[in-house]
Amino acid sequence: MRKIILASASPRRKELLENAGVCFDICPAGREEIITRTYPAEIVEELSGQKAAEIAERCGQAEEGTVIIGADTIVSYEGKILGKPADREEALSMFRMLQGKTHQVFTGVTFLVRRNGSWEEHVFHECTDVTFYPARDSELERYIATGEPMDKAGSYGIQGKGGIFVRGIHGDYQNVVGLPVARLFHEAEKLGIRLDEEDTE
Amino acid sequence: MRKIILASASPRRKELLENAGVCFDICPAGREEIITRTYPAEIVEELSGQKAAEIAERCGQAEEGTVIIGADTIVSYEGKILGKPADREEALSMFRMLQGKTHQVFTGVTFLVRRNGSWEEHVFHECTDVTFYPARDSELERYIATGEPMDKAGSYGIQGKGGIFVRGIHGDYQNVVGLPVARLFHEAEKLGIRLDEEDTE
Repeated sequence: MRKIILASASPRRKELLENAGVCFDICPAGREEIITRTYPAEIVEELSGQKAAEIAERCGQAEEGTVIIGADTIVSYEGKILGKPADREEALSMFRMLQGKTHQVFTGVTFLVRRNGSWEEHVFHECTDVTFYPARDSELERYIATGEPMDKAGSYGIQGKGGIFVRGIHGDYQNVVGLPVARLFHEAEKLGIRLDEEDTE
Repeated sequence: MRKIILASASPRRKELLENAGVCFDICPAGREEIITRTYPAEIVEELSGQKAAEIAERCGQAEEGTVIIGADTIVSYEGKILGKPADREEALSMFRMLQGKTHQVFTGVTFLVRRNGSWEEHVFHECTDVTFYPARDSELERYIATGEPMDKAGSYGIQGKGGIFVRGIHGDYQNVVGLPVARLFHEAEKLGIRLDEEDTE
């Protein structure tokens, strides 16, 4: 059976991958992220690569066929990059900016496959448009008081209470949660890999 | 505290409403559905109304401010209405039709509010476009063998393993799962009702 490693501590990524029937280990990357790129699509690809590479290094001589999945998600609005908020005040100011508007969520994925004793790298990103309903400060403050925004890029969780602010999306929903699983399956398939069954190369 | 009743046995609708922080009772409607309309938007509104009305009847003299929520979801593809599949064969033929294409998911919601001793009715529907990746019969058969499609309109669950077939959506995601909760909150607000807090009229 192929070994699959998710290089992320995100409970949301874990849940998405489990729901899709994938058996995997979790091995969170922990190094400081270093951003050298400018555009959101490039940044998430770069950061996903750093996470996957850290785990590959830690694995040493991995078994043939092993797959490592690194992922990074950011929110972008009118050229601004929104990561996780530092505190409630920042969460409120992010949310104020996003209410009533459309922003973009980018997830970058790096996919390392062990073949012939070395790592093959495959990188992609997905972008989804998310449109929020207009919202009053009192509603935003209520939401922020739940604590949900604090560990999330852009200060909201679409799959939680944050969902009530979302008028609609255009693109992949799971990408907004943190991992575009359908796209991942299709990219893996191009490499002859099924993520949800026992197989060997 | 306002009494809110969900007139549906769907575990997915229950979960969506719970996630949004709503406290409610469940009282599933059970009567035979009678369709007199032609277009998907009209059909789901009609059926959601029948479910809500059945529960309202059962409630008798309900407390002032009580809210009953009825909902119905169907899938529509090129003028065809796709409900729940009767068996695996039908699930396969539905899925074959949808793969590689864009279809529509309609959810109709009827919202009854007890005011001045009678029921005020508010009805709306949401439509979301869903685009599937192309898929081979072998993949579809694997999916159908999981049993997931059998109780779902259109033979798939976007929030389960069915998600790996979805390339993207345009519109409200929760609407595809079975209840457009964000829209519901906004419609309720127009009537001066907050669904997620203690309040009285």
